[in-house]
Amino acid sequence: MSSTFGENLRITIYGQSHSDSIGVTVEGFPKGFRIDEEELAAFMARRAPGKDEFSTPRKEADKVEFISGVTDSVIDSDTVEAVIYNTNRKQHDYSEINNTPRPGHADYTAKMKYGESYNATGGGHFSGRLTAPMCIAGGMCMQWLAKQGITVGAHIASIHGVEDKRFDPVNVTADELAQLKEKKFCCIDDGAADKMKAEILKAKSEGNSVGGSIECAVTGLPAGIGEHMFDGIENRISLIAFGIPAVKGIEFGAGFDVCNMYGSENNDEFYCDENGNVRTHTNNCGGILGGISNAMPVIFRVAIKPTPSIAVEQNTVSLKEKQNTTIRVGGRHDPCIVQRAVPCVEAAAAIAITDLILRKSV
Amino acid sequence: MSSTFGENLRITIYGQSHSDSIGVTVEGFPKGFRIDEEELAAFMARRAPGKDEFSTPRKEADKVEFISGVTDSVIDSDTVEAVIYNTNRKQHDYSEINNTPRPGHADYTAKMKYGESYNATGGGHFSGRLTAPMCIAGGMCMQWLAKQGITVGAHIASIHGVEDKRFDPVNVTADELAQLKEKKFCCIDDGAADKMKAEILKAKSEGNSVGGSIECAVTGLPAGIGEHMFDGIENRISLIAFGIPAVKGIEFGAGFDVCNMYGSENNDEFYCDENGNVRTHTNNCGGILGGISNAMPVIFRVAIKPTPSIAVEQNTVSLKEKQNTTIRVGGRHDPCIVQRAVPCVEAAAAIAITDLILRKSV
Amino acid sequence: MSSTFGENLRITIYGQSHSDSIGVTVEGFPKGFRIDEEELAAFMARRAPGKDEFSTPRKEADKVEFISGVTDSVIDSDTVEAVIYNTNRKQHDYSEINNTPRPGHADYTAKMKYGESYNATGGGHFSGRLTAPMCIAGGMCMQWLAKQGITVGAHIASIHGVEDKRFDPVNVTADELAQLKEKKFCCIDDGAADKMKAEILKAKSEGNSVGGSIECAVTGLPAGIGEHMFDGIENRISLIAFGIPAVKGIEFGAGFDVCNMYGSENNDEFYCDENGNVRTHTNNCGGILGGISNAMPVIFRVAIKPTPSIAVEQNTVSLKEKQNTTIRVGGRHDPCIVQRAVPCVEAAAAIAITDLILRKSV
Amino acid sequence: MSSTFGENLRITIYGQSHSDSIGVTVEGFPKGFRIDEEELAAFMARRAPGKDEFSTPRKEADKVEFISGVTDSVIDSDTVEAVIYNTNRKQHDYSEINNTPRPGHADYTAKMKYGESYNATGGGHFSGRLTAPMCIAGGMCMQWLAKQGITVGAHIASIHGVEDKRFDPVNVTADELAQLKEKKFCCIDDGAADKMKAEILKAKSEGNSVGGSIECAVTGLPAGIGEHMFDGIENRISLIAFGIPAVKGIEFGAGFDVCNMYGSENNDEFYCDENGNVRTHTNNCGGILGGISNAMPVIFRVAIKPTPSIAVEQNTVSLKEKQNTTIRVGGRHDPCIVQRAVPCVEAAAAIAITDLILRKSV
Repeated sequence: MSSTFGENLRITIYGQSHSDSIGVTVEGFPKGFRIDEEELAAFMARRAPGKDEFSTPRKEADKVEFISGVTDSVIDSDTVEAVIYNTNRKQHDYSEINNTPRPGHADYTAKMKYGESYNATGGGHFSGRLTAPMCIAGGMCMQWLAKQGITVGAHIASIHGVEDKRFDPVNVTADELAQLKEKKFCCIDDGAADKMKAEILKAKSEGNSVGGSIECAVTGLPAGIGEHMFDGIENRISLIAFGIPAVKGIEFGAGFDVCNMYGSENNDEFYCDENGNVRTHTNNCGGILGGISNAMPVIFRVAIKPTPSIAVEQNTVSLKEKQNTTIRVGGRHDPCIVQRAVPCVEAAAAIAITDLILRKSV
Repeated sequence: MSSTFGENLRITIYGQSHSDSIGVTVEGFPKGFRIDEEELAAFMARRAPGKDEFSTPRKEADKVEFISGVTDSVIDSDTVEAVIYNTNRKQHDYSEINNTPRPGHADYTAKMKYGESYNATGGGHFSGRLTAPMCIAGGMCMQWLAKQGITVGAHIASIHGVEDKRFDPVNVTADELAQLKEKKFCCIDDGAADKMKAEILKAKSEGNSVGGSIECAVTGLPAGIGEHMFDGIENRISLIAFGIPAVKGIEFGAGFDVCNMYGSENNDEFYCDENGNVRTHTNNCGGILGGISNAMPVIFRVAIKPTPSIAVEQNTVSLKEKQNTTIRVGGRHDPCIVQRAVPCVEAAAAIAITDLILRKSV
Repeated sequence: MSSTFGENLRITIYGQSHSDSIGVTVEGFPKGFRIDEEELAAFMARRAPGKDEFSTPRKEADKVEFISGVTDSVIDSDTVEAVIYNTNRKQHDYSEINNTPRPGHADYTAKMKYGESYNATGGGHFSGRLTAPMCIAGGMCMQWLAKQGITVGAHIASIHGVEDKRFDPVNVTADELAQLKEKKFCCIDDGAADKMKAEILKAKSEGNSVGGSIECAVTGLPAGIGEHMFDGIENRISLIAFGIPAVKGIEFGAGFDVCNMYGSENNDEFYCDENGNVRTHTNNCGGILGGISNAMPVIFRVAIKPTPSIAVEQNTVSLKEKQNTTIRVGGRHDPCIVQRAVPCVEAAAAIAITDLILRKSV
Repeated sequence: MSSTFGENLRITIYGQSHSDSIGVTVEGFPKGFRIDEEELAAFMARRAPGKDEFSTPRKEADKVEFISGVTDSVIDSDTVEAVIYNTNRKQHDYSEINNTPRPGHADYTAKMKYGESYNATGGGHFSGRLTAPMCIAGGMCMQWLAKQGITVGAHIASIHGVEDKRFDPVNVTADELAQLKEKKFCCIDDGAADKMKAEILKAKSEGNSVGGSIECAVTGLPAGIGEHMFDGIENRISLIAFGIPAVKGIEFGAGFDVCNMYGSENNDEFYCDENGNVRTHTNNCGGILGGISNAMPVIFRVAIKPTPSIAVEQNTVSLKEKQNTTIRVGGRHDPCIVQRAVPCVEAAAAIAITDLILRKSV
């Protein structure tokens, strides 16, 4: 089913932008684990809208309520049910969309798929708001992974051509990743962050939007995690990452740069360090060989398209009349969602990795 | 299970590089469909090794035998079993690898995962040879899709920095895709092909290898195919495409270029053509919005790393002795696999798309 | 995952007897369908506790709230979230059980499986209370099936040796099934019902409990529903029916009586009726051949064990001390759950059948 | 997919009665395990046809060939491919059936489901012959289980009303189960066996057939195996057991007898034995509470209908002409399949139990 991800840890996301609630059912999470609810709230706040001038003014507290499977913060059932009650709904904003699809949105394709039974209000189940339940599950996974010594962290790699520094793919540390999470605008290089903010505000002032990219690292992952062929780390992270609306590309390690390389450049040569651990001097494979971790950091990047909802006038069609027309998308939209998508990408990676760790290979 | 892909059409791939046979179990293929076995053999031949100086000299006919579920070329069971009996096996080439992992290969990670029970011979189930069974299933799907007016075709987009022309993402036609399949070295621009061949031969002469990229298009796909969130076309094609060894990145439509765009540039504006069909003037979304097809061509590109097996001396470790050492990979290897991976990428796309078409949305 | 059932219609049940809420996530339900919420409430009431002297005095309204996926009673998302907030929780009743397992309950096996992380309170996720969410999904399915002309209905076939009349397996009608649902104590033969009630009250007065059986029929199912081998109607109904706590056996059509038959007796001979429909004079196969419906009524029976929670003193062990001891189970328990399980069995059948109908065979 | 069973151990069965081959793909079997191929052949022989006057004269050696994933009898891949090449095919026997369905067979329902694309030859994928591949996987599992101290064994519980002794559900031993496997006609009581044989030969002489039942036990299973709700031992064994053609009912422990019991009779009281092990004096629950094993023997029985293929004239219809007609089923059929189904039931139980053991609960 298309709202479900995972084999041993399984999440099922539900909700619509303007339904009473959105939420997630989490199956198979390690029982007896104590969730730090405060830390989870802090993680949710990184994604939440309405907190600064770079995102939509729609304010949602995104308060997580565990209505089953958690007693006194401890997981005590195979199935955990977490809900966010929507507080700031405005159904009236979407009246026009059902007939005149917004360019770059799923309005048209959903209509073609579901016909009249589709309710475009707030983007239906295509809404970016459904990354909030993904972040609940992801935040839980990040806490569990931390107890195993595994850290997941991401930063804004670029916005509208302005590039942040890259992670050092060999030496990136858990501490670096932790420090990044303290930043309101999550770049390694604060100078780059300022330039990115300027790009966003420029686009915003023109009723426009901008895209960018996010780089994510996973440190502390032992060798041997991931399965061959269709359940490798790359397959599983890609599967879930494209569930974040606006992701249009993903690359691991050296990614598309491998197209230009010799084998002798791209291969990461092995060596034994002073402790007898097998490591590599380079990390072009992004910590993954044959789908399976090699104990070097897992590194990947995703491309995030510009928010399709813009106030600029665009050409579209009226579906009933089969005529050309134009649209300016009103409502409360983000001029850039890259910065808010950073914790979503972390969540996606954490869920995929946890699921793979919980598999039992024999 | 990690050798299995698909929900309504399901493939399970088995085999090892040097086992008696490799093959695929295909479940849920439309019953009553007549397979053109000659056309399938021609498709298999595009991937097969040993046919020119750009690929490994290992010769395998890759003759497909349907041992169950097909009578007189017609599918007459829910489960089809197709086998390729390996003819040209050489077990002795791999003696050294079990202790000294080849850089860039799954030798090390598989050993860490499976321990002594792992048999590295020929790359075990990580072998690129297992793309042959994927091509059987993919070739069957391409024939079935063709009957629905849907064409899948790919070309070499680049090898070691030499770029082919790109598909016109708006106007690419089934005829173009069919013509590409006639070419032995599958580029749009024959001049680029010549330069690519030179790059491969140069690397080969040095015992080295080169990477590249492949671009794939799907034409004729009606609007409304694909599911929301985790079962969108992007998710599903990525999931299977990373099952092709050496794929390290994937991007749809404008892909990573969206990072540098304004929303007003990236959004594909809708218009009605003279027949009342809704179309777009650009195709930055690669024919996919919200995971669902919009009836424009589906376009994606994958990055293929250089073959890791090279004769150049590389640093590695001896696992038992925990010492640094070096390796030169002998055996019969490809200096470049991009050209042979073209039909594999087509197969992956065809399988993913067929599976999505066979889903019943209600 | 073990709280999940279904392929094309999928339900995931969550909750514990004494958690804040219990509920169900329903994926893939036909979009645009209008739920009759009053009828659903009436269905839920048939299962609800606390309504008469034959069941536990714990009162629960079992009010269904759709918190996502349903707008104005119409399904408008692929994922529907339905919740029952528990109102009448008493956590203190279960203090003793964690160390002295109740005979006939999952206390011991759950402890052996989960260790200290298992919370036995109210039976954890083994509680019979979790049949309420199954009934939500089942009630929705029964309404959808009714629109396709398919009726699911059950009755108490026996309680503690007192037998009701059996359904006429050839001629049972939708009307009969509808009338049964109007009865408070759901027997075909009201005389048998009275004797059953007497059995229950006798057991109750002795602090004991009684078992029984339920017979279920599905009318109006067209031929061709169900899949071969592992996804036949029998496989699928069994899989879900054993998810109702206390079910210990299931049989279809003539069931265990086939053991004593000749082929010539058991085979249901075909004939054409006046309308050219193929029918059978007998229905020993229970409407199912090769796992697939033949358009005759589907008939099955399940065995329900006596409620294990009884006030009679029983031998058990104290797990920590590894000593023999005794237990009398206090709290609010049912002297018989057969009558309350009738709608649960209908729900199970309805969900299994709907899932099979929604599959797309090609 | 309906030819597939299992989550962590997964089998996919393919083949038709008269295809070139039948076989099974086994995924997730413990790597490094050495199969005793001779023992497996002996197990296959127990099911094989053509060996005595009680079964079909069709002779099939049912020789198992591992064509991938097994090297020198050792599992060395995640995917094992085992094939039986059919040797004794007769396509011409089935010419009539496509229009005049055999009573008790899937001919009619398959035709209604698949239409003209269905090939009834030899029963298509409904053939009892497909229990041979299930036995391959089951025989492998029985060997693996034996290494964990777990034994699966079954006997003929009844044929046409003649009953064998039952297993002692509390004290049945692995030795007893092993001895049963040595018997050609697998009853505990040899006197009962003789009466059963007489029943079969009487039916055979009349061109008729008889049904019966099989009882299966699993000893040595530790407590804590099985999952709650839909993945309990009962759910999983039922799911696979109904995949054996002719099974029409299943019951665990006291089974349908629980309908007549008091709770105080049915509950199995716990005690500590001299070694501090928790055991029960009775075993009405069949070793399963809440879907999970309690370390007592797992006990279940299945009802097997009489072989539907009989030479007695029966009423049927001609589908094209929509007219009543009659049929006598020719070809080579079994007058009773209960005795041949004994290893199939063992195989089903062994596969289900192995799959559950391989799950990782956290």
